[in-house]
Amino acid sequence: MKFSDLLQKLGIHQHHSLLTAPNCNPDITGLAAVKEAQPGALSYIEGSKFAAEVDRTQASVLILPMDAALQQKATDRHIAWMSTPEPKLLFAQAVSHFYHPYHPAAGIHSTAMIDPSVQLGEAVSIGAYAVICAGVKLGDGVTIHPHVVIYPEVQIGDRTVLHANCTIHERTQIGADCVIHSGAVIGAEGFGFVPSPDGWVKLEQSGVTILEDRVEVGCNSTIDRPAVGETRIGRNTKLDNLVHVGHNGQTGENCVMAAQVGLAGGVQLGNWVILGGQVGVANQTQVGDRVQAGAKAGLHGTVEPGSIMMGNPASPYKVFLKASAIYNRLPAMHQSLRQLQQQMEETQAQMEKLQEQMRAIEQEGEGQV
Amino acid sequence: MKFSDLLQKLGIHQHHSLLTAPNCNPDITGLAAVKEAQPGALSYIEGSKFAAEVDRTQASVLILPMDAALQQKATDRHIAWMSTPEPKLLFAQAVSHFYHPYHPAAGIHSTAMIDPSVQLGEAVSIGAYAVICAGVKLGDGVTIHPHVVIYPEVQIGDRTVLHANCTIHERTQIGADCVIHSGAVIGAEGFGFVPSPDGWVKLEQSGVTILEDRVEVGCNSTIDRPAVGETRIGRNTKLDNLVHVGHNGQTGENCVMAAQVGLAGGVQLGNWVILGGQVGVANQTQVGDRVQAGAKAGLHGTVEPGSIMMGNPASPYKVFLKASAIYNRLPAMHQSLRQLQQQMEETQAQMEKLQEQMRAIEQEGEGQV
Amino acid sequence: MKFSDLLQKLGIHQHHSLLTAPNCNPDITGLAAVKEAQPGALSYIEGSKFAAEVDRTQASVLILPMDAALQQKATDRHIAWMSTPEPKLLFAQAVSHFYHPYHPAAGIHSTAMIDPSVQLGEAVSIGAYAVICAGVKLGDGVTIHPHVVIYPEVQIGDRTVLHANCTIHERTQIGADCVIHSGAVIGAEGFGFVPSPDGWVKLEQSGVTILEDRVEVGCNSTIDRPAVGETRIGRNTKLDNLVHVGHNGQTGENCVMAAQVGLAGGVQLGNWVILGGQVGVANQTQVGDRVQAGAKAGLHGTVEPGSIMMGNPASPYKVFLKASAIYNRLPAMHQSLRQLQQQMEETQAQMEKLQEQMRAIEQEGEGQV
Repeated sequence: MKFSDLLQKLGIHQHHSLLTAPNCNPDITGLAAVKEAQPGALSYIEGSKFAAEVDRTQASVLILPMDAALQQKATDRHIAWMSTPEPKLLFAQAVSHFYHPYHPAAGIHSTAMIDPSVQLGEAVSIGAYAVICAGVKLGDGVTIHPHVVIYPEVQIGDRTVLHANCTIHERTQIGADCVIHSGAVIGAEGFGFVPSPDGWVKLEQSGVTILEDRVEVGCNSTIDRPAVGETRIGRNTKLDNLVHVGHNGQTGENCVMAAQVGLAGGVQLGNWVILGGQVGVANQTQVGDRVQAGAKAGLHGTVEPGSIMMGNPASPYKVFLKASAIYNRLPAMHQSLRQLQQQMEETQAQMEKLQEQMRAIEQEGEGQV
Repeated sequence: MKFSDLLQKLGIHQHHSLLTAPNCNPDITGLAAVKEAQPGALSYIEGSKFAAEVDRTQASVLILPMDAALQQKATDRHIAWMSTPEPKLLFAQAVSHFYHPYHPAAGIHSTAMIDPSVQLGEAVSIGAYAVICAGVKLGDGVTIHPHVVIYPEVQIGDRTVLHANCTIHERTQIGADCVIHSGAVIGAEGFGFVPSPDGWVKLEQSGVTILEDRVEVGCNSTIDRPAVGETRIGRNTKLDNLVHVGHNGQTGENCVMAAQVGLAGGVQLGNWVILGGQVGVANQTQVGDRVQAGAKAGLHGTVEPGSIMMGNPASPYKVFLKASAIYNRLPAMHQSLRQLQQQMEETQAQMEKLQEQMRAIEQEGEGQV
Repeated sequence: MKFSDLLQKLGIHQHHSLLTAPNCNPDITGLAAVKEAQPGALSYIEGSKFAAEVDRTQASVLILPMDAALQQKATDRHIAWMSTPEPKLLFAQAVSHFYHPYHPAAGIHSTAMIDPSVQLGEAVSIGAYAVICAGVKLGDGVTIHPHVVIYPEVQIGDRTVLHANCTIHERTQIGADCVIHSGAVIGAEGFGFVPSPDGWVKLEQSGVTILEDRVEVGCNSTIDRPAVGETRIGRNTKLDNLVHVGHNGQTGENCVMAAQVGLAGGVQLGNWVILGGQVGVANQTQVGDRVQAGAKAGLHGTVEPGSIMMGNPASPYKVFLKASAIYNRLPAMHQSLRQLQQQMEETQAQMEKLQEQMRAIEQEGEGQV
């Protein structure tokens, strides 16, 4: 695809090199990270931090930030460019003109085992050996990859995609435009046991798991249903792989959880919460809007909106960074402290001696008087 | 169901509101958490911590602790109640009178692929596309959901349930009344490699994985078999989702592991051990009876029975809580320490000066004498 | 099998007890850990740390380190032995003469759903209900267990084994002699979303995931493909269960990742890197050759070759061990510090008083003069 064609497809009318260098209109033959780009590649520069790459990259086309110096550099190197305040976002839009992800055709495979009571939308795609139990409703354009198992009474919204080997448990409600990745398990019974003298007694999990529209759930992640009430993942929230959401978890819209995050029971997240990899959130924790937690943080209690938290138990990141910078000096501090204690003892002994001497002098003085 | 009928089904003869308010006999139409309860709901109050909810809840029936004040409050609000020392346990019993979890009927689906040598108990349920290899024995009333794969020579006890897409590896022995949740993998080969000049050499895993009766294994959890000997999960032990138990792991009875717990190779847990989410236990760690470990703790070495541990490396929780409360003051402590060192230097300098002055005075004094 | 036969099969010509005690040639009837060994068992002693076991074990045959004292002890107890600098490595070789792991016969099950365009090598084994999409190439001797799903255009090298319920996504390239354990998901789309005013926008993942030869991936582990470029697992690298490798991750040869390790996007590991359980590695971290990280460590930035790291954020292990040994004394240190501050105040007050007294004396002296 010619650079000029891509500009047209993306609706870019300004901030591009063709305005100043109309002959710089290369063929784009592929996509690449800026460091690995070969001639013909389209790539992007995320911010000034990566500016030096403009001097080195072999890419033929770059998406740049709104930076005249970078634009000039690219022009000087005969690299075609377009500029935008959000280069990665524009790159994401550009990618979809080059790469078409695998998507099976509509149609129902002859081996799919679909209960007669299932309600199917228009143009659904159901793969080999999928099993869909009684009372399930699938919206229009739903894609069920091979080997998906859907327990009874599940509802799945329009255009949602369920990848291979994932399992959707009874009564789960999944919205429109969701993606459930391979091996994920949605709506299985929550971990509810009550201690008794005879051991742990199961608390049946009668509740429901709800995924709102545009939710994505990563490979082998698990979202449980509760004893009573609901577990709810808010609109456009994205979960990476191997994430666990316990019974009664609630998230707002546009949250992001990186891989291996775990939410214990009854956790509530606001909107736009971002949790780094391996973060853990304790039972009943309330996390405000736009909280961010660094990888491996442990959240509990109430976390104020907008906080950026790190460590376990988590602290505001400035506090954590200062404290963890000191952590390795603990042995030196410990030694300094012991030395100070010793010096203090010596000082006090010297002080007492001086005080005694002083008293003697003053008594002498009085004696003289 | 009328409140009075539920009392009868639960065998409750005392400590309930019908004894004093015989007209307070509502219909129970559902189950709810006390904060979300609507009229008609049955709910419970776990302890005095939640007492204020009795003033606010819309529930029609409450299970209360043995607390006369709460009983009076409920009566005053025309809420039917029953009291017990263990409200959540009674609620668990009550739930099973309202909610009947999905359970497929007995019978063997025509697409289940069952080796002729498999021994089937009475009244088993085997779902679509299940694959059961040679030499497997299934007890009476076993339920195999769709897409379960059972490798050769596995034994599964009476009434055990295997959910969709789980995999049971060769020679695994699973007891009676167990539940293996969707996607779990039991008895796969342990992680055994020996370094050599040519790279890592596999140590074949010839051992066996054994789950005793009433064990539950959460979604996508993994329990490995060892090179020699056995991996054993004790009776009535419950594992949440995404838990890993390495080769040769041994647990006692009634242990509980929250989501994302990992036990390295050869870990031994006593009875009634409770591990919080994301806890890690190092190779060969010995954990005594009734140990509890807080979320994200790292256990190693030997952990004394009854200990409550937190942190990584884990400490007794009182020690950890005190230390972690100070952690954030490390920068201030560091500064105080430097200040003290400076003050100490000044003090010592002043002290030396005074000592010198004192010596001068004493010498003068001697000179005068 | 006679001990002498095993020696022959292993090609052991020296350092064994038959040279000195030719009648000590027991039948080997099984394999066991040295502590649990019964008569007839073959076992091994990993190093001098386990030397006391030679006095106690019931094993009939031991693999010993090169240690004359242990050899004598074993001979005295009529235990047949062979010695080697690497007992566990020799044990691994011995095991394969006793234990033959389950391996289904070559052949394609009638229910396997194989696209006509798939290229099959010689002597492949494809289990029940496996689904293999268009354009896939399988090498010679490949084993596909039941319920594996392979998306389009995947390549799988000779003798590689895919266990039940695992999923291989489009365009993934898996080398020869690899093992993918049950439930693992390879090559699913990476976690790539770009924030926009309308919420998170998906960055399509057009890249490819490559596993070189002899790679093993544990149960329910996940290795993602990137937006552009590749995710690559180096030759003979071994991943335990529930490990996550994010998009663009790169490992060298012979790396080992214990269970529940997580690599964020763009992580690079050198050769022979060993990561303990639950280790997390942050975005873009560069980890040098032969780095080792203790369980639960958090790596970020650049980690020098050969480092042994612990803690989060990780430090060199000596630094970490010293600091963490002091951690629990933080409250005591805090108290000491406050006490010192108080003492310092008192000392300074006393000092001022003395200085004043001294000034008075000196003024008197001057007055006298």
